[in-house]
Amino acid sequence: MRHTRIDLSRVQAAREVIAPVFLDTPLYRCEALEPVLGCAVSVKLETANPVRSFKGRGTELVAHGLAAAGERALVCASAGNLGQAAAWSGLRRGIDVTVVASRHATVTKLDRIRALGARLELVDGDHELARDRAAEIASRDGIRLLEDSLDLETCEGAATIGLELVDASFDVVLIALGGGAMATGVGHVLKALAPGVEVVCVQPAGAPAMTLSWRARRVVTTDTAVTIADGVAGRRPIPAVLADLLLVADDAVLVEETSIIAGMRALFDHAGLVVEPSAALGVAAVLEDRDRFAGRHVVTVVCGSNVDADAYRRWVSHR
Amino acid sequence: MRHTRIDLSRVQAAREVIAPVFLDTPLYRCEALEPVLGCAVSVKLETANPVRSFKGRGTELVAHGLAAAGERALVCASAGNLGQAAAWSGLRRGIDVTVVASRHATVTKLDRIRALGARLELVDGDHELARDRAAEIASRDGIRLLEDSLDLETCEGAATIGLELVDASFDVVLIALGGGAMATGVGHVLKALAPGVEVVCVQPAGAPAMTLSWRARRVVTTDTAVTIADGVAGRRPIPAVLADLLLVADDAVLVEETSIIAGMRALFDHAGLVVEPSAALGVAAVLEDRDRFAGRHVVTVVCGSNVDADAYRRWVSHR
Repeated sequence: MRHTRIDLSRVQAAREVIAPVFLDTPLYRCEALEPVLGCAVSVKLETANPVRSFKGRGTELVAHGLAAAGERALVCASAGNLGQAAAWSGLRRGIDVTVVASRHATVTKLDRIRALGARLELVDGDHELARDRAAEIASRDGIRLLEDSLDLETCEGAATIGLELVDASFDVVLIALGGGAMATGVGHVLKALAPGVEVVCVQPAGAPAMTLSWRARRVVTTDTAVTIADGVAGRRPIPAVLADLLLVADDAVLVEETSIIAGMRALFDHAGLVVEPSAALGVAAVLEDRDRFAGRHVVTVVCGSNVDADAYRRWVSHR
Repeated sequence: MRHTRIDLSRVQAAREVIAPVFLDTPLYRCEALEPVLGCAVSVKLETANPVRSFKGRGTELVAHGLAAAGERALVCASAGNLGQAAAWSGLRRGIDVTVVASRHATVTKLDRIRALGARLELVDGDHELARDRAAEIASRDGIRLLEDSLDLETCEGAATIGLELVDASFDVVLIALGGGAMATGVGHVLKALAPGVEVVCVQPAGAPAMTLSWRARRVVTTDTAVTIADGVAGRRPIPAVLADLLLVADDAVLVEETSIIAGMRALFDHAGLVVEPSAALGVAAVLEDRDRFAGRHVVTVVCGSNVDADAYRRWVSHR
């Protein structure tokens, strides 16, 4: 066992707390994609739930814990998916949720956060500024600051995906890398229970901070994060998360924006799946390096489908 | 209990035979659709599996039965989804599968049938001609003729969807109506285990034979079946299936092609779901009669996503 912050028995216990609608998501072979990708491909689909991403697995743990402790409010920064999930989980437990987001966040994500009853505060800057502002609000109001990837519930919630993968036989799992909650969570479970599976993290070349940090084995920040994959566009990796990632990731690769779009298009054309850019990172990685995966069986976690419909139409339209 | 051909204990036993990848599909509230539809909406998603439709539930029973009896071949007519599912189930059990389809069937469905190793024979006519031709082949070769909706495995396989709905609390279930396997199967289970749920079948106005038959309480055939909803485009209802439908359906409604397209667009825009026209029939029915469903909780079975990608782009593009 590798000693990350994640605890396998807590991950297993988490299944009792998380609303069933987020658990036991579809996992299936997608043979129509295989001629395009040149390898055996299975999809782990995290979009068929009320918030259209995997983030509910983590926010359910957070909201459950707060309710059990008699606390009544939380604030988080979000590019949109964590905020929706926090709003969903909070609404069901009488917890006031405040979400801080960039004014440039995907409009439909912001609309859904409002529709789910959360308070939304927008900042004139990127996700890192939203993180700073959320911390200020938490400090000012004395409420729980939910920090994606730093807070163990987010990692251990995501790690329940790993429990749903270990009974199958894959060679490689492809995981979108942003703050690192999903990568460290799923990676920990696989290294513990299916150590033969290669854990490959995939990040956009335009927002490479965590990948550069993993390669350098120390935190590397970037000045910008420019990518359509808004869900993974961070610039300041969290040291404790990097430390865990170093223990569980076998590789971290960067992909180009054109590959992300090609990945979305492939998932639409051949799998009938609408995915947001972050959810196409795994397919993008295979498209960029078919030789690496040839003859192997990869599973890609399709982690979200919250796209702006008009932007998505452009991405998958004919060139 | 209503005495249809369907047997609840066989439906329950079917869960042990059907590959798990087709069972326990996502069922979730889709609040983003609700302002558009004016009622509470849940989605039962039958597309996240290797054949992208619910038909695997039935073909698994067929192939299991054949294999158990030592038989090695089957032939079926199909608009494309039954054929894919039969090919998938047959491939796993060493059963030769021949699919007869119209030359005008959706190209991607035909491609997938071939890719799954089935023999494909095309006829110059519609689905009813394909049914005739499949019967000829079965007779000539002395092999099993799989007839959708007539053969109980197809109804009882589809009926397992109903088992997955009865624990939730809905007012109405919307079921696409074609040959009637899904409507009679799901309808039977609901009438047996959740009799308060209204069972509403939905068919395209351009291919109304079964709905007209249900209303007339006798088989009504039509000369044409003109609809983009290829999966439900029959002209000759099967008497035994109609008899069952009369016992379990509370209503059968017809919807216009423009509503089917609007339904596909709504599911794409607000739920992030790619669906084939047949799978949008339920949403189309609500769009055409919002007052009927206002204030109620409907579940719509999203039964397939096998679309031609280019046709689909046109359907959901901006007008």
